[in-house]
Amino acid sequence: MSGSMEPMPTQFDPPSGTRDFLAAEYEARERAFAVIRSVFAQYGFEPLQTPAFERLDVLLGKYGEEGDKLIFKILRRGEHEASGEADLALRYDMTVPLARVAAAYGSQLPSPYKRYTIGSVWRADRPGRGRFREFTQCDLDTLGSASVLADAEVICAVHDVLDRLGIEGFRFLLNSRHVLAGLLESFHIPAELGAGVLITLDKLDKLQPDEVVAELAGRGLPQDTADELVGTMIGPDAADRIRAVLKRSEEGAAGLDEVDEVLALTGTHIPPGRVEFTPRMVRGLSYYTGPIWEVVAPGVSSSISSGGRYDHLIEQLGGPDTPGTGGSLGVERILLLLAGAGDAPQLRRLDLAVTVMGDEFAERSFGFAAIARDAGLRASVYLGGSGKLGRQLKWASDQGARWALIYGRNDQEAGTVTVRDMDSGEQTAVPAGQLGGYLAGLAGGRAAQA
Amino acid sequence: MSGSMEPMPTQFDPPSGTRDFLAAEYEARERAFAVIRSVFAQYGFEPLQTPAFERLDVLLGKYGEEGDKLIFKILRRGEHEASGEADLALRYDMTVPLARVAAAYGSQLPSPYKRYTIGSVWRADRPGRGRFREFTQCDLDTLGSASVLADAEVICAVHDVLDRLGIEGFRFLLNSRHVLAGLLESFHIPAELGAGVLITLDKLDKLQPDEVVAELAGRGLPQDTADELVGTMIGPDAADRIRAVLKRSEEGAAGLDEVDEVLALTGTHIPPGRVEFTPRMVRGLSYYTGPIWEVVAPGVSSSISSGGRYDHLIEQLGGPDTPGTGGSLGVERILLLLAGAGDAPQLRRLDLAVTVMGDEFAERSFGFAAIARDAGLRASVYLGGSGKLGRQLKWASDQGARWALIYGRNDQEAGTVTVRDMDSGEQTAVPAGQLGGYLAGLAGGRAAQA
Repeated sequence: MSGSMEPMPTQFDPPSGTRDFLAAEYEARERAFAVIRSVFAQYGFEPLQTPAFERLDVLLGKYGEEGDKLIFKILRRGEHEASGEADLALRYDMTVPLARVAAAYGSQLPSPYKRYTIGSVWRADRPGRGRFREFTQCDLDTLGSASVLADAEVICAVHDVLDRLGIEGFRFLLNSRHVLAGLLESFHIPAELGAGVLITLDKLDKLQPDEVVAELAGRGLPQDTADELVGTMIGPDAADRIRAVLKRSEEGAAGLDEVDEVLALTGTHIPPGRVEFTPRMVRGLSYYTGPIWEVVAPGVSSSISSGGRYDHLIEQLGGPDTPGTGGSLGVERILLLLAGAGDAPQLRRLDLAVTVMGDEFAERSFGFAAIARDAGLRASVYLGGSGKLGRQLKWASDQGARWALIYGRNDQEAGTVTVRDMDSGEQTAVPAGQLGGYLAGLAGGRAAQA
Repeated sequence: MSGSMEPMPTQFDPPSGTRDFLAAEYEARERAFAVIRSVFAQYGFEPLQTPAFERLDVLLGKYGEEGDKLIFKILRRGEHEASGEADLALRYDMTVPLARVAAAYGSQLPSPYKRYTIGSVWRADRPGRGRFREFTQCDLDTLGSASVLADAEVICAVHDVLDRLGIEGFRFLLNSRHVLAGLLESFHIPAELGAGVLITLDKLDKLQPDEVVAELAGRGLPQDTADELVGTMIGPDAADRIRAVLKRSEEGAAGLDEVDEVLALTGTHIPPGRVEFTPRMVRGLSYYTGPIWEVVAPGVSSSISSGGRYDHLIEQLGGPDTPGTGGSLGVERILLLLAGAGDAPQLRRLDLAVTVMGDEFAERSFGFAAIARDAGLRASVYLGGSGKLGRQLKWASDQGARWALIYGRNDQEAGTVTVRDMDSGEQTAVPAGQLGGYLAGLAGGRAAQA
């Protein structure tokens, strides 16, 4: 069977494009989410959780024609089910719900409203490697501040998340919609060609310069303008040349100031070189109005995080007229990067595995497990049907238990409990009455090591 | 306006029966979930997360006719949308997905498979107080163990959760399906009347004894049998009389042994009186096969947790033939209890609020916030448009900030930063170069207080 073939789905697989997260993967994801929550809280962002579905009319028409097709719609219920109509739809992103929340709670929300959210979104995309129909989206936004401080704060928070997660070699590409507009103005590019020109310019990191020039000419740009534009954007001193060009336009100069402010602010915290002015960087979404940015990292072809300022979007989405800036972490890509980077941690489900050497010992063994938990250890009794010690020790080992507790006839007569070190095999007979203190000692030692 | 009236929904409300969780509520819920996760992990249960939706055929027919009507169905997509047919459906409970996972992963799962799950389920019920269409379900199950130790372990874990959450006066009502079967047998109640008789008996905590007798007679039970049965079940020495009656039936005696085993095992850990043999307690669901239990608490009319052994259910749901036992926490009811019990904790979003006394100080102030975070404080700069100190200190106070940092012209000239204690109003001028150490001291002092 070819390595690229997908296994045949069985009736027991989760639905196409969705995943079951068993313990190890669930815990790896939760560890990453805990880092994200902790960093965002450090910046004073507060959590928000909205329902998995919204009314259909809240979502429809917000994501363009292609987006509308990818919305999972929920059939009406009861007598209306037969109509075949939908009235609800699964959350497609976190921005439309944010706009609805801003409209619904208004002045009850702090001002500015700095919120983050981590949760599932659903899109009926064709599933593929790293592309799912149910995936986690993590957004960070500040509504109600027009200050460039808010833009810089979002960038710093995202930086700290990626840094704390251990992503290596990541860089922020920074630009501004005003820079892009200024660029078009400086080169006297007609308004109707502007959007197309920017889309083509964004390919400078993937295509050859002459290919970009050809595409620009194909879009109707005069050949010499296309040559000059591309010539300005490439080469080692491109940044200086672009800065000079931008100063010919009022909006370009303003954009440059904005970029420089963000560079200065983020530079108080982020090491040099990690935020880079990248004039060719466009970001597809047309709703951005100010600074825009994305994060690239070695080994990932697309960005792992992106964002920008969107001062009219919330109003367009049905919310109040409020400035906004924010970003999104590509959680699934980031988790893939992390999973590839390190060894999976050894999962230790139990600290202490308590054997049950027969029905007559069940009650005592069960009580010992409770004592162990009170002492701060994760503990469980053996729940299987075998009375054989070897079999039960294999279970203890499968659970990754650090110690096993054995209590049988001999222990009962001697008034002791046997604690076995599962690494060394060494066994210690502990007087039953002193078990709690002994286990607390083990728990303390383990904590000291960790 | 009458207090019982629901507010008119506006176009910005979340869909009927769903909720937005803003920060305070979200955090209260997360604190409870963290306790649950931590206790379950102490018992060696591992987490599982399944998709929000399943294939429709996985869910249909599993919850009875009434249940099927409450399933949220997802419309097919693309060219199939016009058919008005559904192919997916939102998760209705956590048990059917567990059965699917047990079937899908088989021997890859540990044996026994002890898992917990906390997540949303969706039911198109009529919304009401404490009844939602999107709500959190929390299940704890052990698959693959026929041992009563597994039943007792689930009960102890649920006990510890409720205890750690601070629920007051809760009690476990314990029974066994074998006890119920033995009871019917001892009173020679015909098989076809059995289920109805048990449903009526379960009302002994709500109806008068003569009402229960009348209902039993109405179900076709001879009057003297009904009298004798109800007479056995009530009064101060009911437990002893029932024990005597049960010993007349083989299954009743076995059920009694099972109950006594659970009482003995849980008694090694749970304080006396908190688990009580309750022979009238039936639990509606017919799939239980052994011990059954529910948890009652003062001030709540329905149970806040329930569970039992279901040795054939997983197979019936399409999974492997495996014994199972488990329980469910009524998370929404428990959260309501907790919300009513204590004062809402004072939410402190920031430790340090950093003022920005004008554009020319923005960069320094922004850098000070970064220093504060490195020192372990939650910190943010002021993002609003006002240059007035009073306005900015009001913002600091609204954020619950413990300290404010002020940096203006005087500080710049003196080379200091002013740290204001927001409780006392006391201000300290700290040399700018020593700010990190000073703030680390504040962070350490705060940690020591907590």
